Amino acid sequence: MGKLLIVGSIAFDEIETPFGKTGKILGGAATFIGLAASQFRIESGIVSVVGEDLPKEYLDLLAERDIDISGVDIVKGGKTFYWKGRYHNDLNSRDTLITELNTLGEFNPIVPNHFKDADVVMLGNLHPNIQLSVMDQMDKRPKLTILDTMNFWMNNTWDELMKVIERIDVITINDEEARQLTEEYSLVKAAAKIQEMGPKYVVIKKGEHGALLFHKEHIFFAPALPLEEVFDPTGAGDTFAGGLAGYLTEARNVSFESLKNGIIQGSNLASFCVEKFGTERMLNLEKSEVNHRLIQFKDLVQFNIELT
Amino acid sequence: MGKLLIVGSIAFDEIETPFGKTGKILGGAATFIGLAASQFRIESGIVSVVGEDLPKEYLDLLAERDIDISGVDIVKGGKTFYWKGRYHNDLNSRDTLITELNTLGEFNPIVPNHFKDADVVMLGNLHPNIQLSVMDQMDKRPKLTILDTMNFWMNNTWDELMKVIERIDVITINDEEARQLTEEYSLVKAAAKIQEMGPKYVVIKKGEHGALLFHKEHIFFAPALPLEEVFDPTGAGDTFAGGLAGYLTEARNVSFESLKNGIIQGSNLASFCVEKFGTERMLNLEKSEVNHRLIQFKDLVQFNIELT
Repeated sequence: MGKLLIVGSIAFDEIETPFGKTGKILGGAATFIGLAASQFRIESGIVSVVGEDLPKEYLDLLAERDIDISGVDIVKGGKTFYWKGRYHNDLNSRDTLITELNTLGEFNPIVPNHFKDADVVMLGNLHPNIQLSVMDQMDKRPKLTILDTMNFWMNNTWDELMKVIERIDVITINDEEARQLTEEYSLVKAAAKIQEMGPKYVVIKKGEHGALLFHKEHIFFAPALPLEEVFDPTGAGDTFAGGLAGYLTEARNVSFESLKNGIIQGSNLASFCVEKFGTERMLNLEKSEVNHRLIQFKDLVQFNIELT
Repeated sequence: MGKLLIVGSIAFDEIETPFGKTGKILGGAATFIGLAASQFRIESGIVSVVGEDLPKEYLDLLAERDIDISGVDIVKGGKTFYWKGRYHNDLNSRDTLITELNTLGEFNPIVPNHFKDADVVMLGNLHPNIQLSVMDQMDKRPKLTILDTMNFWMNNTWDELMKVIERIDVITINDEEARQLTEEYSLVKAAAKIQEMGPKYVVIKKGEHGALLFHKEHIFFAPALPLEEVFDPTGAGDTFAGGLAGYLTEARNVSFESLKNGIIQGSNLASFCVEKFGTERMLNLEKSEVNHRLIQFKDLVQFNIELT
């Protein structure tokens, strides 16, 4: 069975959308990545840090889904990373109201020995130095390393981020970030420049407009499923990355074709994530629902055209 | 051979983009629709109006492509509709610098007798009263009537526009216009509401993000081809509509499947249109190029996923 190592935050999220608001609920990149990846037949483990204030049942929810949490450091007397945000009416943009790094601010990741031989490493959105430390602890270079990052690290830790980007195989970023990273408006040109920086595969996330995969001269486009209602976009990007990483770990095969399937799987899982607040939908998701929607994805883009 | 009637403007366009500017060149909805439709084996004719200032060779360019121009009224001493616009750096938005309606302001469309039995009518973006007049002149209800319209008519001629929308089969509008027309943010909900207004098929254009087709509970998504460089977006929407109309006229078959192929054909032709200023690329487009890019479209979205 393929082995996936995930590094990322486990957090308290507090969310306001036009449809309502939550109290402090379970969130964080590693949480969403882990839940998405748990849809696949793989061994997965999380490296993260939390405080003693995180309810035990939150970590239990992950452990019950066969996610190894021995790499989650519970800091005595510490507080868990806390993010509060409010989405605008179109749900495409949001304001961060509160960010308290807490224990995440001094996170020193320790990869458990039994995950140092992971096939796939998924570097969730975090300080590049944490991502570098995880890569350095691996026994050997994994078959595949996937990076998720964001504009914050481009603005504040450019040099460190570049060291990460040099060493990874797949990057997932959004369209604006791809443009910022390369100073190219055309995503085709941006993806070409990013491939020169290191990653062989570039995945550009466009939210409700789907995602693009670039590899050499090949391009693949995965649509987002048009939904009647998007309830809460929190975690959609992490869920996408988790679906991609989980699928590739199960497939044990890295190719343009398997990456294509991986981003379809990621898009599919993300379409569930946004239907409820936080992790609620992902915690109650049946394989049959996942498969049913995969067929919808196929129908959405499939056509048969004869050349004349 | 299927017969397509096109009503729309023939214009002087003057265009500024970050890549350069033109003088007054051939433009207009009917021009782009006609050029796109001429890629198919159909009989097509244009109903439009121009002034005596329009160079004869512009109409010749259409006639040479077997587009019937007997319905183009050349007003003695009149001036041709003139639009000047400047695109912003991202090419996704533009400012209109000059609009002179000229002869288009008093356009009284006359459908030639030999086009009153057209199979397909393509109502290009124009005052709804002109579109209504064309529909009223047909011998019988065409097999298919396609409407292109925009927010200007929603803002200024709502009641007249509603009379058109009641009577057509397919509407093509962009995402913002679909939202304005229905006061629904979700495009799925907006498309359902528009179907209640009349059209059985709703095509929502999202520019560089592709196009969606809605029909009852069915949804199809056609991507836009990711391009290295978009040079001039002028006419892309009309070219899309012309490809759709031309394909459906040739196919002589109206179904969700044929509409799917139609919007792929439209997206494909639009991807050429934006590569040069104005009509330049469409005037120099080989069938082999069109077919080659159709294969790229297929590769762009095709995937094979096994359910587990």
